[in-house]
Amino acid sequence: MPDPKYVYRFPEGDKDQKDLLGGKGANLAEMTNLGLPVPPGFTITTEACNDYIRAGNSLPGGLLDQVRSALRQVEEETGKGFGDANNPLLVSVRSGAKFSMPGMMDTILDLGLNDETFNGLIAKTGDPRFGYDSLRRFIMMFGDVVLGIDRGKFDAIFDEAKEKAGVDSDADVPADALRDVVARSRALVKAETGSEFPDEPVQQLELAIRAVFDSWNNERAVHYRRIEKIPDDLGTAVSVQTMVFGNMGEDSGSGVAFTRDPVTGEPEIWGEYLMNAQGEDVVAGTRTPLPIATLKEENEALYDEFAAIALKLDQHYRDAMDIEFTIEQGQLYMLQCRVGKRTTRSAVTIAVDLVHEGVITKEEAILRVAPSRLDELLHPQLDPRIKTVSLTEIGAQAAKAAQGKAEMIFALSQAGVDRLRKTGALPSTALLSFSGETAIGTLRIAEWNTMKDVDQAAILEEARFLEMASGLAASPGAAAGSAVFDPDTAAKLGHEGRDVILVRQETSPDDIHGMQAARGVLTQRGGMSSHAALVARGFGIPCVSGCEAIDIDEGAHTMSVGGLTLGEDQIITIDGSTGTVLLGLIPSVEAELFPKLTEFLSWADDVRRLAVRTNADTPQDAAKAVEFGAEGIGLCRTEHMFFQKERLPVVQEMILAAAEAKALEAEVMAVESEKAGAEGGQRRALEERLSDLRGQLEGPMGKYRGSLERLLPMQQGDFEGIFRVMGERPVTIRLIDPPMHEFLPDYAELLESVTRQRATAPQSPELVEMERMLHQVEMLRETNPMLGLRGCRLGILYPEVNEMQVRAIFRAAAIVAKDGVDVHPEIMVPLVGFESELKQLRGLLERVADETMREAGVEVPYMFGTMIELPRAALTAGEIAAQAEFFSFGTNDLTQTTLGLSRDDAEASFLTHYLDKGILSDNPFETIDQAGVGVLVQRAVAAGREARPDIKLGICGEHGGDPRSVEFFHNAGLDYVSCSPFRVPIARLAAAHAALAGGA
Amino acid sequence: MPDPKYVYRFPEGDKDQKDLLGGKGANLAEMTNLGLPVPPGFTITTEACNDYIRAGNSLPGGLLDQVRSALRQVEEETGKGFGDANNPLLVSVRSGAKFSMPGMMDTILDLGLNDETFNGLIAKTGDPRFGYDSLRRFIMMFGDVVLGIDRGKFDAIFDEAKEKAGVDSDADVPADALRDVVARSRALVKAETGSEFPDEPVQQLELAIRAVFDSWNNERAVHYRRIEKIPDDLGTAVSVQTMVFGNMGEDSGSGVAFTRDPVTGEPEIWGEYLMNAQGEDVVAGTRTPLPIATLKEENEALYDEFAAIALKLDQHYRDAMDIEFTIEQGQLYMLQCRVGKRTTRSAVTIAVDLVHEGVITKEEAILRVAPSRLDELLHPQLDPRIKTVSLTEIGAQAAKAAQGKAEMIFALSQAGVDRLRKTGALPSTALLSFSGETAIGTLRIAEWNTMKDVDQAAILEEARFLEMASGLAASPGAAAGSAVFDPDTAAKLGHEGRDVILVRQETSPDDIHGMQAARGVLTQRGGMSSHAALVARGFGIPCVSGCEAIDIDEGAHTMSVGGLTLGEDQIITIDGSTGTVLLGLIPSVEAELFPKLTEFLSWADDVRRLAVRTNADTPQDAAKAVEFGAEGIGLCRTEHMFFQKERLPVVQEMILAAAEAKALEAEVMAVESEKAGAEGGQRRALEERLSDLRGQLEGPMGKYRGSLERLLPMQQGDFEGIFRVMGERPVTIRLIDPPMHEFLPDYAELLESVTRQRATAPQSPELVEMERMLHQVEMLRETNPMLGLRGCRLGILYPEVNEMQVRAIFRAAAIVAKDGVDVHPEIMVPLVGFESELKQLRGLLERVADETMREAGVEVPYMFGTMIELPRAALTAGEIAAQAEFFSFGTNDLTQTTLGLSRDDAEASFLTHYLDKGILSDNPFETIDQAGVGVLVQRAVAAGREARPDIKLGICGEHGGDPRSVEFFHNAGLDYVSCSPFRVPIARLAAAHAALAGGA
Repeated sequence: MPDPKYVYRFPEGDKDQKDLLGGKGANLAEMTNLGLPVPPGFTITTEACNDYIRAGNSLPGGLLDQVRSALRQVEEETGKGFGDANNPLLVSVRSGAKFSMPGMMDTILDLGLNDETFNGLIAKTGDPRFGYDSLRRFIMMFGDVVLGIDRGKFDAIFDEAKEKAGVDSDADVPADALRDVVARSRALVKAETGSEFPDEPVQQLELAIRAVFDSWNNERAVHYRRIEKIPDDLGTAVSVQTMVFGNMGEDSGSGVAFTRDPVTGEPEIWGEYLMNAQGEDVVAGTRTPLPIATLKEENEALYDEFAAIALKLDQHYRDAMDIEFTIEQGQLYMLQCRVGKRTTRSAVTIAVDLVHEGVITKEEAILRVAPSRLDELLHPQLDPRIKTVSLTEIGAQAAKAAQGKAEMIFALSQAGVDRLRKTGALPSTALLSFSGETAIGTLRIAEWNTMKDVDQAAILEEARFLEMASGLAASPGAAAGSAVFDPDTAAKLGHEGRDVILVRQETSPDDIHGMQAARGVLTQRGGMSSHAALVARGFGIPCVSGCEAIDIDEGAHTMSVGGLTLGEDQIITIDGSTGTVLLGLIPSVEAELFPKLTEFLSWADDVRRLAVRTNADTPQDAAKAVEFGAEGIGLCRTEHMFFQKERLPVVQEMILAAAEAKALEAEVMAVESEKAGAEGGQRRALEERLSDLRGQLEGPMGKYRGSLERLLPMQQGDFEGIFRVMGERPVTIRLIDPPMHEFLPDYAELLESVTRQRATAPQSPELVEMERMLHQVEMLRETNPMLGLRGCRLGILYPEVNEMQVRAIFRAAAIVAKDGVDVHPEIMVPLVGFESELKQLRGLLERVADETMREAGVEVPYMFGTMIELPRAALTAGEIAAQAEFFSFGTNDLTQTTLGLSRDDAEASFLTHYLDKGILSDNPFETIDQAGVGVLVQRAVAAGREARPDIKLGICGEHGGDPRSVEFFHNAGLDYVSCSPFRVPIARLAAAHAALAGGA
Repeated sequence: MPDPKYVYRFPEGDKDQKDLLGGKGANLAEMTNLGLPVPPGFTITTEACNDYIRAGNSLPGGLLDQVRSALRQVEEETGKGFGDANNPLLVSVRSGAKFSMPGMMDTILDLGLNDETFNGLIAKTGDPRFGYDSLRRFIMMFGDVVLGIDRGKFDAIFDEAKEKAGVDSDADVPADALRDVVARSRALVKAETGSEFPDEPVQQLELAIRAVFDSWNNERAVHYRRIEKIPDDLGTAVSVQTMVFGNMGEDSGSGVAFTRDPVTGEPEIWGEYLMNAQGEDVVAGTRTPLPIATLKEENEALYDEFAAIALKLDQHYRDAMDIEFTIEQGQLYMLQCRVGKRTTRSAVTIAVDLVHEGVITKEEAILRVAPSRLDELLHPQLDPRIKTVSLTEIGAQAAKAAQGKAEMIFALSQAGVDRLRKTGALPSTALLSFSGETAIGTLRIAEWNTMKDVDQAAILEEARFLEMASGLAASPGAAAGSAVFDPDTAAKLGHEGRDVILVRQETSPDDIHGMQAARGVLTQRGGMSSHAALVARGFGIPCVSGCEAIDIDEGAHTMSVGGLTLGEDQIITIDGSTGTVLLGLIPSVEAELFPKLTEFLSWADDVRRLAVRTNADTPQDAAKAVEFGAEGIGLCRTEHMFFQKERLPVVQEMILAAAEAKALEAEVMAVESEKAGAEGGQRRALEERLSDLRGQLEGPMGKYRGSLERLLPMQQGDFEGIFRVMGERPVTIRLIDPPMHEFLPDYAELLESVTRQRATAPQSPELVEMERMLHQVEMLRETNPMLGLRGCRLGILYPEVNEMQVRAIFRAAAIVAKDGVDVHPEIMVPLVGFESELKQLRGLLERVADETMREAGVEVPYMFGTMIELPRAALTAGEIAAQAEFFSFGTNDLTQTTLGLSRDDAEASFLTHYLDKGILSDNPFETIDQAGVGVLVQRAVAAGREARPDIKLGICGEHGGDPRSVEFFHNAGLDYVSCSPFRVPIARLAAAHAALAGGA
């Protein structure tokens, strides 16, 4: 059997061979075949890499022969010789996997250089200094990345030479000093490896190829693949290409360009270049590159040639391309092209433009933008230009200097301060305190906002903002404000118009009013689906949760991190898109639904089958969601309305009275049941007991009913507001769901207060009231509240609460309907496990609905349905459908019960470990677990439709905003998904993707 | 269409027509056709009753005609006339449903009596007093049950007459006083109903029939049907039968008999009779009936006739029969027969005897005993003869007198005291304190035990033991002992040989040592599956849980109920079979596996397919289970071994060190991951941090490993003991399951202590240690521990614990194997949700197992498997089977997760309400929920078997001891069920029933 074909010359490949040739190799082949000026070369396949790894890092037989043969062809094409001292062929060696991957060995330039070919190089440029510098760099680069010698040791040699020569800048080192560096570098290689530096070009090439292959499995590459879920068995290709030199004088240069603007998407070439420079100089930032427009001024013909190539690539690839080019002595060469990375805004704009240009179809355009990327657009973001440094990295001393500073705070190097002072970008008001090499600068935001763009850019170039810690990116967007450690202060300051960040160990429903008034939320504990995360996502405010590195002391109103203790005046910034927490105020940029995005999403709407609704509990959220394209409310949580500060006392009074009344009612029931089996004297005794109990019942029952009557108009007002915003769109209202004790004070806090009071002021009159509350909380407390008295179970035990809610809904609906709005309320019962539960509540609540509408004299069309959020409900969906006109899958709870995972507990303890160790590939609270939860959904859909063909099926868990889950729901045949307002555009696009993927 | 046949004369029916004729009617028909002396009569069908109810309580057309026609036939047969003044036919009218049902109108005697027929009656007996008395009784009975007049009003008339006549006893009231009573009773009827008493016999009969029909839906009957799950649409039949009189002089009499002993099952006629008495006199206890043997002495011919009939019925029905008979002037009549109610012991004995007698087959015998009834036999029981009175009923005064009394305590009426004093049964030492009409007697148990049987019987006849309250019958059997309110004291006293009852608000794993040493457990809170209930059932000790009426103050070491407060010296008795809690020591009787039961169960073993294992954690429990027939251990919970008093400190040290170590390890992992993506200075900083962290890790890691090493020999010893007891039987050992914090002190208690200490002694040195523990408990605390870090999640995060356990198992197995025992350990991983979890642990643990066996030089055959206790595990059982050689369904947790019900929380709050209101028909923690949990089990069985045909399938939840669930598991195709030792015989029988029911 002949050896496999391991080597493809550029003309032998094409752009669709990324699997085999890597992205780089495939595109070099494509450009070559397009007739573009590509320096000749060849690509070693990924198969060669895999065979190498499989053979225990041994080059496969025949590979080197094929390489040599390909080299000979390149020699022929270029007229140069590999190792030829007179006209040397030098090559670059680059890795190139199917997916671009940081961490792998990237590039070795000038390979083929040695003392002999060095002469040929000098002959071409006439500049021996350039020659020695190239050789020095090559030995260092090769020594570092191929031979694995600590780069610091080469740097030390060079630094010594600079010192000896008495120069500061690399460019000023004279040629013979460089020759000395070359000699000493060779000696270093000998000392470190025990062998001479490999001067033989073919040997150099072989070693470089091995190094690229080896780098596939180095630590960073493996780490990156794990994070990006890239399979380990793809392997990397190696592209070997004739060197061209952008640094061969002033008629040479290098640049990178993008066929359209990668930030805005505007259809004009964007790029930067430097004359007399290699590619890495453009990227490294040691010299400031020129905008591509300058090239047009400097050399119009060359620019036109380049622009024509750019246009050709843009059209050929039917997408905006990222290009690397070099000009060697006036001759243009293309070194690389690939589909360009771009901001989401740019991606949308480019996709829409390409449709308008007739290049791609709307469907293609839709598929060009990953739904999850839209998230970026919908929240304020940190200015993308900012750079950060960690508190620990700048050192305790400098960090202390930053502590307590208000508004913008940043670190600068001495050199940076000098540069900024020179340009005058840094205003004299910018307070600078020094600590060793590091300066801490601060600016007031008002000052910043009035600065010239160029000065802002200069400062952003030098400034390093201070990163305190990282937590979970729990709700996207950036926010800055004063740290506030309790919800009451947050609410107060927030209502005064101050920007605050609510900082808590973890949040609970008691914190809602503080969260509502805050710009963002930071918690020390809790995962991606903790209370803080869920509520913040619902409100559309940024949240960083589970930031364990910060120690939050709520009692002392401080947070500590890295030796700093920060109090309530401290301004901090959180970036909920990355999980970063920063010191001071960091500039951010606002987002909006721009016209091309609106157009883009309207195309998505045309192809999707799934409707998209929103989870919204207030008219404000509902309005926001409608703006983002929501077609209805899929989940309106009525209990959030209870948490409002002025209502909570009424709710608490209601609960305490209800609990008392229900305990007595249970006793009445027990005695009645005993009475039924009793006779004579015992029966009479029981009758007396009954009448006694009924007397006792009156007090609490009256209080209970009274507080419900006070809550009724409040809820009614809430619903009225929501109905007015939503108009004809359906509004699914979930009846009260959480356990009663969520509305009462926290047990541990209360116990602590009571115990302290008992120990220090046992006679105090308030102790009695506190103890009564403690007792009640104790009674209502549950071991596993998630699996306790909540949802429809509450409705069955406390039907009066549900009745009040239904009355409020229909009174509100009637009022809005009388104004001519065609309202569509949908009453949703949570946590049903048994058909009998729903049947009981349906009978009760439909009677209340009918009564209320009769009183109001208006007939409002409505639906009655249930959540499917327990495995049993999913398994018996056929029976439950007899009582439900719609199902809404509550996939949050369904995931918790199906997987036996308490969201908060799991994310705080083992879920992270599971994800790290690959026991789980996805967080099941973010992306639906198809094999478990998904099977239940499919089963329930089938059974529900069989029992009631016109049943309406939706999902209102967090998964409704997750693209992969949306695809699953599309395929499962649901009618709609519902998600938080800020995820509505994502869901619209994801639904379109799912439809285009050709599912059901 | 002709009217349906509503009336069947006795010769027209047979015993299989219970649906139509009721039990009574069908058996009267059968006896008539057997040629036995049955007074003629007829039965009105249940269909007539249902038509009556459907028609809105209106007698169906044609019914009365059919009744009249049947009456005419009876008149012909008896030669008497209905309403004939000279030779009157009097009848009894009785209800008779398919199932015997208390609460319905039972019997009206002497119907047909009025002023005219009265004369005919007198003529027969020559005794006008008897006639008036009969008439008085008839008017009163008819007025009460048919006309609905308060019986008290009739009693008042009679009492007045007695007073006027100056007599005490009913029998002494003279004839003319009775005549006066008759007249005043008639006047009462007129005054109450506005009409004359209906003297017309046919009208009387019609009204009586209506009254029987109406009583089908009276309160008590409906209540009873709900409890017994009897459908409401069965209806009742009405039997009308010629009266015969057992009170027509000394040659007349009445009696009840049982063809075999209803208590012991011995094959001899058991019965009681009274001469010159009606049937109700025998039952009422106003005169002491004679044993049936006396009849043989008094009238051998009659006895022989009776005995022949009894034998004939016994043989004909192939079962022990309960018979009512009357002798009228020397002539024997059979009034009723039915399959006799019997104790479980009697049921087993009779079934076995009938097989030996060749009357029934072994299979029939097996089906004759309901599996759940065996429970009675396996625990000590309260003496079945005892009678009780509630504390409230005897009044506060008397109750107070009982308080603080030791050993046996009972209430006696004044008359009772007199009677006992007369017979001398009550020893002079029996302390009597009077409170009004009630005396409180007390006896020492030693005294009681040396008393003559007849004296014991006399005392039990009069004494009323004091019932304090009722809770849930959580673990069967009776136990008496001193109330003890904390586990340490319970353990101490228990080990000293004292009988104690552990009384707690609710129990937790901390209480285990106290529960182990106690005779029984009483809790104020918690349901049938609370910790207390589960553990008590496991230990086989009685438990009453959720006894809310008793207020338990653990701090004060008291319990309060009905105005009494009882302290730690108080002896109480709990009956875990009924849920009753009694004051003082109540005599009980021991149970045993008697030879006929052993034989009976061996027949069950022959027919069943399901194997029966046991849940046992100690050699003692294992031995008990083997005695009861267990074929292996299906669940050995290793964590119970951790709770032992001397081990708990080691376990706690292990947890604290492990938590610290794991937190550091997580940090190491995070830093390593960061390092992989870092370069240069940052990378070096991270490397330093890593080495620092690794240094910090050594301390806690060493402590953690050290405590595991100390626990290893303890666990090894436990396993060795169990392997020795179980021999060749398989032993399934579940690796550690509960969350770590279960081994630490209770959070709320600790918080209270710390807060108190902080407030009162902030400088105390122990506060530091307490705060450290509090902090750790806080860290490990979870919102929903049921769904948190437990089961295999622990094993993955803390693999060292599982490794220690596996090492202990295989060291123990090796030692026992070396002694020639063919041990079969089965390693079981709990709470698996993902195949990947099991795969990871399997790799780890099988390596440890192999290593350990290699070290020991013994090869022990073992299996590796998992529990299926999460819906996801059931749904992905096919994948999980790749890693598991066996599945054991953990139906407790599977029920909790599938139904979203936390056992404790639900039973304490809404589950009772659900059961009361019929939203659920069964407690899903007692009987498996087939539509939900059952479907998951079936699915997992199918998928498991498909993936691995030889997979072993069992169930180890509480349902393994529930007969209906066992039937389900049989049909689902499981290989075995496993239950607590005391339920093993039940499971054996239930499995046999399931096999005979013809399932899979």
